[in-house]
Amino acid sequence: MGDARRYHPLSSPFRMKRGGELLGARVAYETWGTLNAARDNAILILTGLSPSAHAAANTQDPSPGWWEAMIGPGRAFDTDRFHVICVNSLGSDKGSTCPASIDPATGEPYRLTFPELSLEDVANAAHETVSGLGIARLACLVGCSMGGMSALAYMLLHPDTVRTHISVDTAPQAQPFAIAIRSLQREAIRLDPRWNGGHYDDDVWPEHGMSIARKLGVITYRSAMEWNGRFARIRLDADERDDNAPFGFEFQVESYLEAHARRFNRQFDPNSYLYLSRASDWFDMAEYGDGDVMRGLQRIQVTRALVIGVSTDILFPLEQQETIARGLEAAGAAVDFVALDSPQGHDAFLVDIENYSKAIGGFLASI
Amino acid sequence: MGDARRYHPLSSPFRMKRGGELLGARVAYETWGTLNAARDNAILILTGLSPSAHAAANTQDPSPGWWEAMIGPGRAFDTDRFHVICVNSLGSDKGSTCPASIDPATGEPYRLTFPELSLEDVANAAHETVSGLGIARLACLVGCSMGGMSALAYMLLHPDTVRTHISVDTAPQAQPFAIAIRSLQREAIRLDPRWNGGHYDDDVWPEHGMSIARKLGVITYRSAMEWNGRFARIRLDADERDDNAPFGFEFQVESYLEAHARRFNRQFDPNSYLYLSRASDWFDMAEYGDGDVMRGLQRIQVTRALVIGVSTDILFPLEQQETIARGLEAAGAAVDFVALDSPQGHDAFLVDIENYSKAIGGFLASI
Repeated sequence: MGDARRYHPLSSPFRMKRGGELLGARVAYETWGTLNAARDNAILILTGLSPSAHAAANTQDPSPGWWEAMIGPGRAFDTDRFHVICVNSLGSDKGSTCPASIDPATGEPYRLTFPELSLEDVANAAHETVSGLGIARLACLVGCSMGGMSALAYMLLHPDTVRTHISVDTAPQAQPFAIAIRSLQREAIRLDPRWNGGHYDDDVWPEHGMSIARKLGVITYRSAMEWNGRFARIRLDADERDDNAPFGFEFQVESYLEAHARRFNRQFDPNSYLYLSRASDWFDMAEYGDGDVMRGLQRIQVTRALVIGVSTDILFPLEQQETIARGLEAAGAAVDFVALDSPQGHDAFLVDIENYSKAIGGFLASI
Repeated sequence: MGDARRYHPLSSPFRMKRGGELLGARVAYETWGTLNAARDNAILILTGLSPSAHAAANTQDPSPGWWEAMIGPGRAFDTDRFHVICVNSLGSDKGSTCPASIDPATGEPYRLTFPELSLEDVANAAHETVSGLGIARLACLVGCSMGGMSALAYMLLHPDTVRTHISVDTAPQAQPFAIAIRSLQREAIRLDPRWNGGHYDDDVWPEHGMSIARKLGVITYRSAMEWNGRFARIRLDADERDDNAPFGFEFQVESYLEAHARRFNRQFDPNSYLYLSRASDWFDMAEYGDGDVMRGLQRIQVTRALVIGVSTDILFPLEQQETIARGLEAAGAAVDFVALDSPQGHDAFLVDIENYSKAIGGFLASI
């Protein structure tokens, strides 16, 4: 498998919102389609917590990306028309500078000496990357899940750099249910003795904590409704069970979670996970509106926006997308609000390609 | 604090549904009010996973019980009229025989040699206790949460022993979302090195696993809506924070969960928790209806039933109470179905005393 990533060096020092700075930091990104001469056909996608910049296959890396069915010629993100960019969030270990990166001041990995990370830093790093590509104004800024929060920060901190916006399954601030879930995920990692205050290595890795964190994630990313249809009470076959493990798995839903956890474990740096998870809890548009979310949203200037949410999402409930839609509308944007009943919960944008393609493709065709 | 528990010795051997048996086992229970001469005014309450038999204060133990505001003279469970009994589930460590009990065959605690426990066993043990008190037929059988499933088993396995039924925030079978949550709670305990295959003691106790399990429980017992109003994004005061703990708690919702976990830890035997949790996953009325839940429910004979559920309950969603109501109705019972909008989620029956009192008190006044 090839590697399609390119790297943008960030300004050095790169100053972080909550204090601290990074020296010689970089952001990994990938692109699809061609930037036109006017440099006005670029779309930037900001991702959720764990995806890389590899949103779709390309020449250098033909492996399928995490939003493969959405990006390409004739697809919702039509690469015959648009130049699509996806950045790996600052603080994520998929090529961007993160807690697992070497601190040039010490020659050792940052680990917990990485400065406190906020989604505003993720947004600023993405903006520097776009500017570095010679793009003054995006045709569209897209943010999914955590990336939707980063996108709000991007538009607020960099006025006049975004013409239209697509907000996918996200929130204008972290609410206590989501904070509780993420706090418990972080705690599961922190309590794993092999996390060791952030000083794990390939031999001693907090697999148990990461496994619990990932399973809790998957449980809250999907929906009870979907699972009733998909797993019901189906048992594992005898040869899939480990009868020697006391209280071992017995139902298909348990092995489904286990498979998710195995795929994730060792694929994501635990410290980076902690930093990005906490950044999500901290995010709050009310900070930019004298304590009021709506006033914060009203400071964002775009001409048009599409806001999508799902009724089965328990992590970012539909009311939060309604708030974003109302806020952007109050700020003067023409807003399309799409409430879907996809059964897949928060993850619907990765699964219900038909409905998301229709909404996003339709919106982009009209801009 | 006194102790109001009395103990009923179970038949010996007490044979378990899934094989295995207990010798010299017992069930702890408490009572309120007076059994009348006809012995036809008894109400039995079957509890959720963690509560003891101490549902309310009484002379021997004046400390408040877990359903204090519901039980007493003039209250929803009116002890001027009814003789109320609450049993501690078989397998729970609040006085009934459980994995922490001494196995008479070895003189050592059962731990994981305790036979596989099902809610049918919990129901059979409760039925023996009621019979032992000389009560042939209950005026009403009440089951809350897990206890609601045990109550369905009780009525099915012991026909003609229950006149009316109150079903509170429960389900006719475990669905995959609830199984996933409980499986992850069990896994957090099992992965704690101090669980040690069930061989912990007071010095080496799986506190971390139990803490994660309890927090995940509390998250799913309550509702996002309640927490938005209650905690919003309120931060802890500086003196409530431990600034030396990396990724330590910062929001009130986090310290609320921590306080819950601390109150629970060391108060509940981890092995007993594992057994009761798995028993909940196993429960399925479809087993009694040739694979069909409705047919299973239709085998239950009571004259009247009250079925209560809450729209904000994510663990036992309202559709499951609707199924119970329809099944009992199809079996010939006159059913009152009460769907509440209490914001407290699954735990509403412990908190929204006003609405539960009204529904339960009204029903009992009419029987």
